Amino acid sequence: MTASKTLLSPTTLYQHGTLALLVPGLLAGTITMGELLKHGDTGIGTGEGLDGELIILDGVPYQVTSDGKVTVVDDDFTMPFVTVHQAAFKKLVNVSDTNQFMLEQQVLQEAAAQNTFFSIEVTGTFTHVKTRAVEKSVEPYHTLAQTARNQGLFEKDDVRGTLVSYYSPEIFDGAAVGGFHHHFISDDHDFGGHVLSFHVDQATVGLQVFDTLEQHLPTKNKPYMDHDFSDDQITETIRAAEK
Amino acid sequence: MTASKTLLSPTTLYQHGTLALLVPGLLAGTITMGELLKHGDTGIGTGEGLDGELIILDGVPYQVTSDGKVTVVDDDFTMPFVTVHQAAFKKLVNVSDTNQFMLEQQVLQEAAAQNTFFSIEVTGTFTHVKTRAVEKSVEPYHTLAQTARNQGLFEKDDVRGTLVSYYSPEIFDGAAVGGFHHHFISDDHDFGGHVLSFHVDQATVGLQVFDTLEQHLPTKNKPYMDHDFSDDQITETIRAAEK
Repeated sequence: MTASKTLLSPTTLYQHGTLALLVPGLLAGTITMGELLKHGDTGIGTGEGLDGELIILDGVPYQVTSDGKVTVVDDDFTMPFVTVHQAAFKKLVNVSDTNQFMLEQQVLQEAAAQNTFFSIEVTGTFTHVKTRAVEKSVEPYHTLAQTARNQGLFEKDDVRGTLVSYYSPEIFDGAAVGGFHHHFISDDHDFGGHVLSFHVDQATVGLQVFDTLEQHLPTKNKPYMDHDFSDDQITETIRAAEK
Repeated sequence: MTASKTLLSPTTLYQHGTLALLVPGLLAGTITMGELLKHGDTGIGTGEGLDGELIILDGVPYQVTSDGKVTVVDDDFTMPFVTVHQAAFKKLVNVSDTNQFMLEQQVLQEAAAQNTFFSIEVTGTFTHVKTRAVEKSVEPYHTLAQTARNQGLFEKDDVRGTLVSYYSPEIFDGAAVGGFHHHFISDDHDFGGHVLSFHVDQATVGLQVFDTLEQHLPTKNKPYMDHDFSDDQITETIRAAEK
């Protein structure tokens, strides 16, 4: 055993916050990036106030802001909602000339894991990627519906990069978005975000299946703990904003 | 630090299986009691095929079967769905002459934890407790709706015992039953089950609030992994069966 050996389980997905808190705009940053990275080296999320789209690759946390800029954030950057795991992808399949829908169907078929949480990493060349990045709001924070109206949209052709994606089973809809959720970053780190659509030229798909969701909630955050979610129409609002 | 010092976090709730799998009757036992007790000494659940109601207190797993008998199960007893934690209750309040509804409202008020998972332990004398215990089915297992029609109902007046209860936030409905879920065992270990109603004479309420749900899924169980939940009307069926 070496000093650098990780104790993180490759079958555990760690989630801080829950999708529901985005709906009424409970957007205080309640975990730091430094703390988060103890739970994994790969992931996706957003910053305090929905400050852009995060993608964490090989332990490096990239932020795509609503102006399209990509930067690396510091350990004291805080987040209301983020998902991370320790990468141990196994190659599932090579794909070429395929779009988002076809890729998702192929992964569901080959992974046979639709009733648990899993991650895919898609690395290669893309003929087209369309992303969005949400715009940070300050207190009083925007609701998810307001945020969805304030976002930058970006498109790029012939780009080399990586998709980090999580799949959540429909039976856990509410804790996370049921189905796939993809974030992208280009190899040259100047393009990325929450993925709206893509077309693969040539790519390798890696799969990592989890048997455990470690769901951490911001119990020290009084606005979250005191909120009455009963009138927020959580599921309907999330479906409208994420699709 | 002594050799017996536990490494279990008192702020983590461990759940094996998910409520949704009960609906279509995916009732194979997918964790043993021996394995489960590594995650806590207190909890509630059910056995393979919905084999009665389990209540775990001080590391001892009691089973109430549909004939009303109470026994202690072995380490090789298996379960499809069970929730457990390492007890570290703190006294919340003393109560007297109160019913289920009033107690739940009082706990929600005093705990101020309705948006996270928590447990209460209610120990004392009860003027009345009404329980049910479901009846084991064998393959092909019964669905939840069928099971709800095959259960023993039990009532007892003036009984001394303990309620072990979990509260799940409504925003996680589906992963667990939103609201409270109570199991009971009498001090003399001859009466208990899933609680339908109760009236407290005098009792002490202990509270333990969690910031983490460790949700473990039976990913090695092919019937679970292959099942199509889309037509199961999970939420509606659970509400009908648990209320």
